[in-house]
Amino acid sequence: MRLIGEEQLEDIALGAAILGTGGGGDPYIGKLLARQAIREHGPVQLVDIEEVPDDAFVIPSAMMGAPTVMVEKLPRGDEVVAAFDRLNHHFGDRATHTVPIEVGGINSTIPIVLAARKGLPLVDADMMGRAFPELQMCLPGIFGVSAAPMAIADDKGNGAVLDTVDNHWTERLARSITIDMGCAALIALYSISGAQLREGMIAGSLSLAEELGRLVRETRKAHGDVIGAIVDRLSGFPLFTGKVVDLNRRTVAGFARAEVRIEGLGEDAGSTAQLFTQNEHLVAMREGEVLASTPDLIMVLDSETGQPITTEELRYGFRVTVIATASDPRWRTGEGIEVVGPRYFGYDFDYVPVERRVSARAAV
Amino acid sequence: MRLIGEEQLEDIALGAAILGTGGGGDPYIGKLLARQAIREHGPVQLVDIEEVPDDAFVIPSAMMGAPTVMVEKLPRGDEVVAAFDRLNHHFGDRATHTVPIEVGGINSTIPIVLAARKGLPLVDADMMGRAFPELQMCLPGIFGVSAAPMAIADDKGNGAVLDTVDNHWTERLARSITIDMGCAALIALYSISGAQLREGMIAGSLSLAEELGRLVRETRKAHGDVIGAIVDRLSGFPLFTGKVVDLNRRTVAGFARAEVRIEGLGEDAGSTAQLFTQNEHLVAMREGEVLASTPDLIMVLDSETGQPITTEELRYGFRVTVIATASDPRWRTGEGIEVVGPRYFGYDFDYVPVERRVSARAAV
Repeated sequence: MRLIGEEQLEDIALGAAILGTGGGGDPYIGKLLARQAIREHGPVQLVDIEEVPDDAFVIPSAMMGAPTVMVEKLPRGDEVVAAFDRLNHHFGDRATHTVPIEVGGINSTIPIVLAARKGLPLVDADMMGRAFPELQMCLPGIFGVSAAPMAIADDKGNGAVLDTVDNHWTERLARSITIDMGCAALIALYSISGAQLREGMIAGSLSLAEELGRLVRETRKAHGDVIGAIVDRLSGFPLFTGKVVDLNRRTVAGFARAEVRIEGLGEDAGSTAQLFTQNEHLVAMREGEVLASTPDLIMVLDSETGQPITTEELRYGFRVTVIATASDPRWRTGEGIEVVGPRYFGYDFDYVPVERRVSARAAV
Repeated sequence: MRLIGEEQLEDIALGAAILGTGGGGDPYIGKLLARQAIREHGPVQLVDIEEVPDDAFVIPSAMMGAPTVMVEKLPRGDEVVAAFDRLNHHFGDRATHTVPIEVGGINSTIPIVLAARKGLPLVDADMMGRAFPELQMCLPGIFGVSAAPMAIADDKGNGAVLDTVDNHWTERLARSITIDMGCAALIALYSISGAQLREGMIAGSLSLAEELGRLVRETRKAHGDVIGAIVDRLSGFPLFTGKVVDLNRRTVAGFARAEVRIEGLGEDAGSTAQLFTQNEHLVAMREGEVLASTPDLIMVLDSETGQPITTEELRYGFRVTVIATASDPRWRTGEGIEVVGPRYFGYDFDYVPVERRVSARAAV
């Protein structure tokens, strides 16, 4: 167990935005939300996944919606407490911890807000090891953990508890409600025991985010190669460097969808890359060839500063470097690929691990 | 108190379909649903609104969705029990009665199904005195009764409890969920005390439906004038007689919308009438002149048999007689007109009571 205070927040939010693969929310906003809660209620206990008792009752918390909307419609913090309280009450008020469901600038910090306000310990873990756009895309789901009962709340005071036959139905009903609530809502779902946590969650992701954020900060201070440092730490691969020359972004069915065209610079001069995004980056291509795809992590960094650029921030003219890293091995199983592989999102190719794609290109 | 058995069902469903103003569901289906429940669980106690104790806790029940879909997607009866149980549990299992929220072929009989299956007494009343398309259009709402907490359930086993800041938000969230559930869902909402019942509900509407149904049946048997008998009993007005020559029907945003053109026959030969419908008939016009509008009741009857024709049954070529009657006086107040008057539905004219429209025309 250790405490998370104001000092750690900037690093956590920045690192989480790197791992958020374009989604999961803006790190600046995430930091502000968590800072306010910690100033008012004191630091938060961060507990290791191994420290959580088997019979703990953990209620995860998150923000749901289009990140393009989330940056304009900031939660006050009351909403996540309302969602959590509603679900906890439904279960007879027995929650012992909270935890993020995904990694991202906002979705790694919303549970810090909740933990601070409710005085609950926060588990150092998440359910994706990155961000994904839909609720059924949580690793515990493939180990039989149910997203529902789920609670949802908005800024106006509306709320609901959903009970569904499967996690796809949870996503479907919650997405419609989120759209009604203005494309952004706060949620509590996937309640999980300590034993299930260890089987189905990704351990240490808040600490990894913090470490990455610190690495960026310190490398910058030393005028070092920030992108190189990120790639090394994550055993990742640089995929493409260039300038954003086209960006088709729209909010569809409650998601921020985008297609991004990047014209190569430096070693990549003369070729063009494309990114396909649904809140998060799902596919990176170069001249029609897949460079990397979901569930592997595709991250877009500012070529100059190494700053992660979220989907909603991306603009024409940005100089960016696209990198990728391997997803958690549990996403790479048959069950995992069924839930988050490229075919689920409508792409007509099979998943190939990013490291195999990289070595196949190197061999040519 | 009296018992409702199989014998009463046909009359109730038929009479309710007359008062349902085109919506509220098909009387044949409504009768079948209630008959099955009564055969399995015995007759239902129907109690007068005056017999309900002040501190009774009444949970109304209904089907929600597009009537065009309801006739193809019949509830088994489990779903209304699921919705009711969910809401009752939310309140600590203290329901004492159920009651319809509207009058209609299905929505007058769904509460009979629930009452039979749960062994609950049914209150002889409803919240509209007709059918209306949206949830906030319940009379107790203008007396401060809240639609939420509300429960909703589908045939697959999905369900939710909604808690909202006002009745418009209940409608909005429930409508989206209903659309996801396939445009038809079962609901429990507007929980109400015995004292509030007497202030805000329409007394005796199940008995009135039964009486109307019996009147139609007996007049038919005697080869009498069925439409004349209905008009007399309801102190109504015949508006137009003709043949349906155009029908533009579509399911939009979870509602069955229709525009119907009727070419006059007999006394009305040479002129054309139009009906505008959102689940229920909202406006009847003749050559651009309003004949009657919401909240007054506009009913379409088969000119030959007097049988009420629901929106989804209406077809090209049908010979129909359109009649109208005054709505409950509480709908005709400023507060009532704000909720269910023509302007709420987007029509650019003020509400004028049907009897005034009729006498103005007679005076010309």
